[in-house]
Amino acid sequence: MESMYFENGTLFVLDQTKLPNEIEYFTPKSKEDYYYAIKSLQVRGAPAIGIFAGYAMALLNEDKQELKKYLDSARPTAVNLSYATERVLKAYNEGKNPLDEARAIHLEDIEMCRKISEYGLSLLKDGDGILTHCNAGELATSKYGTGLGPLLLGKERGYTFHVYSDETRPLLQGARLTSFELEKAGVDVTLICDNMASLVMKQGKINAVLVGTDRIAANGDIANKIGTSGVAILAKHYGIPFYVLGPYSTIDYKCKTGDDIVIEERQADEIKNMWYEKPMALPETKCYNPAFDVTDHELITAIITDRGILRPPYNVSLESIKDND
Amino acid sequence: MESMYFENGTLFVLDQTKLPNEIEYFTPKSKEDYYYAIKSLQVRGAPAIGIFAGYAMALLNEDKQELKKYLDSARPTAVNLSYATERVLKAYNEGKNPLDEARAIHLEDIEMCRKISEYGLSLLKDGDGILTHCNAGELATSKYGTGLGPLLLGKERGYTFHVYSDETRPLLQGARLTSFELEKAGVDVTLICDNMASLVMKQGKINAVLVGTDRIAANGDIANKIGTSGVAILAKHYGIPFYVLGPYSTIDYKCKTGDDIVIEERQADEIKNMWYEKPMALPETKCYNPAFDVTDHELITAIITDRGILRPPYNVSLESIKDND
Repeated sequence: MESMYFENGTLFVLDQTKLPNEIEYFTPKSKEDYYYAIKSLQVRGAPAIGIFAGYAMALLNEDKQELKKYLDSARPTAVNLSYATERVLKAYNEGKNPLDEARAIHLEDIEMCRKISEYGLSLLKDGDGILTHCNAGELATSKYGTGLGPLLLGKERGYTFHVYSDETRPLLQGARLTSFELEKAGVDVTLICDNMASLVMKQGKINAVLVGTDRIAANGDIANKIGTSGVAILAKHYGIPFYVLGPYSTIDYKCKTGDDIVIEERQADEIKNMWYEKPMALPETKCYNPAFDVTDHELITAIITDRGILRPPYNVSLESIKDND
Repeated sequence: MESMYFENGTLFVLDQTKLPNEIEYFTPKSKEDYYYAIKSLQVRGAPAIGIFAGYAMALLNEDKQELKKYLDSARPTAVNLSYATERVLKAYNEGKNPLDEARAIHLEDIEMCRKISEYGLSLLKDGDGILTHCNAGELATSKYGTGLGPLLLGKERGYTFHVYSDETRPLLQGARLTSFELEKAGVDVTLICDNMASLVMKQGKINAVLVGTDRIAANGDIANKIGTSGVAILAKHYGIPFYVLGPYSTIDYKCKTGDDIVIEERQADEIKNMWYEKPMALPETKCYNPAFDVTDHELITAIITDRGILRPPYNVSLESIKDND
């Protein structure tokens, strides 16, 4: 269940807004199709958006400079997006085939995910019970994913895992995406509400927690989907390893600690009204809806990157894999 | 916003299935009306069900013995229900006015809640930030409630609290009921998803956690709505007092520890489909849906009952308030 694939000169893209009820691949034709797909979250997940925009730059017969600007404006905060459009534009300006560059971005992501998945899998054993939070799988990347990568790669290798997927309120990525893609991959998965994580841990059903990450600070604090820090605290309480998986590109060496990370606050509507037939609280009731939280490095057993498995102290291990530049 | 009130010989009952979108009191007329109200959760919360059934026994002109059997069958596991119908039946058989007995049950519950609320309020200070989980307020009892009692009593006394209400998946009692009744009482309340509790604690917004309880074991372990144990672990991690509020009748001295408490497992539908316009996971995806969890006594700062505030060691403090019989 890949987020997109390129075959016989055509790009096929999974419409993630229709999951889990409909599985529909579409082929964007115009620049407006590509823009809308990013804007409306038909394609989501920073790596997937980057790959998608790379293909847009290569495949569309438009002024490339103007096209880059247009695509970048679809989700201005997505770093992977402008990174990918820049790379393809540069290749084009240098007289190279832009499609080769777009393909390279795609294949590099698969390679990155595969490395993370291999490292992650080395920490697990056949039969393990795994807890996941949010979605960091193939749908958000190219293949395997980051947080879910070891589970999908392990499945290919014949491992049996018993996965508990937190539904991940309010946007329910764990229900709509993680349980969906694990089910489709044939991995044993059980969906739970976020507040059930403590009980399944207490019952001995969980041998390890795997989560993705949006940003890794220089001291090993990480930002990820809201609720991640709570899961980490529960894991520590029950003595369960808590693993964070993400590419080298997620490390922000300029960000000293998690305190420097600004938490995006989203609309009350997502908590009170979204998805529902009827509102679940009064119109006047306030909601607090932070999209991310920061997990303290002291709660993290290991950070798994495409450059290897990092252990505490993270300021040292993160520094040890840093590019010299 | 009381769950029911008796005025000029008539019982007025709040239809809780319509909350928070409609506030509608109704007057049950027939035994079928009473039965349906219990069965369909128009009236919910063990104490409220007991009070309601007591009035049914007193007000309906039926064979009392048959009526008790009929009402008890509406929710066979609700101990308060059969306790109340038994009391009114006994009073009737002894030639007393059954309405006096029904009124007594109601007034005793108010008195019980008031005592718990007073003890609980003594542990809080004006301006405190409070986290709640699920609903243990007036809607589930008579007046004030247990877990929410100190907040509602405090409001009457001019205290200002800043309450964060966990929405409490999957049945959303925190959204539909707790945020509703605090809002209506004029208490400052902010609704959050369950997985946001860690962040609001970390931000210093929470000075104490207040929860109700369904059962208290002899060693101080408590059963309460799913997710309560997770909140308790977070509170301990952040050094925040975790208070459990419940009446003496909730203590089960025959239950030695929380391990003796069987966890009710409910249907997958509540997680995947209920409330939603469209299903949030595939039909074949398994869900695990435990309704309660057990919070270890070591995580509890104090247990607040109508007989006083209990502190660890709970086996000793619980024994000290036990009836001699």
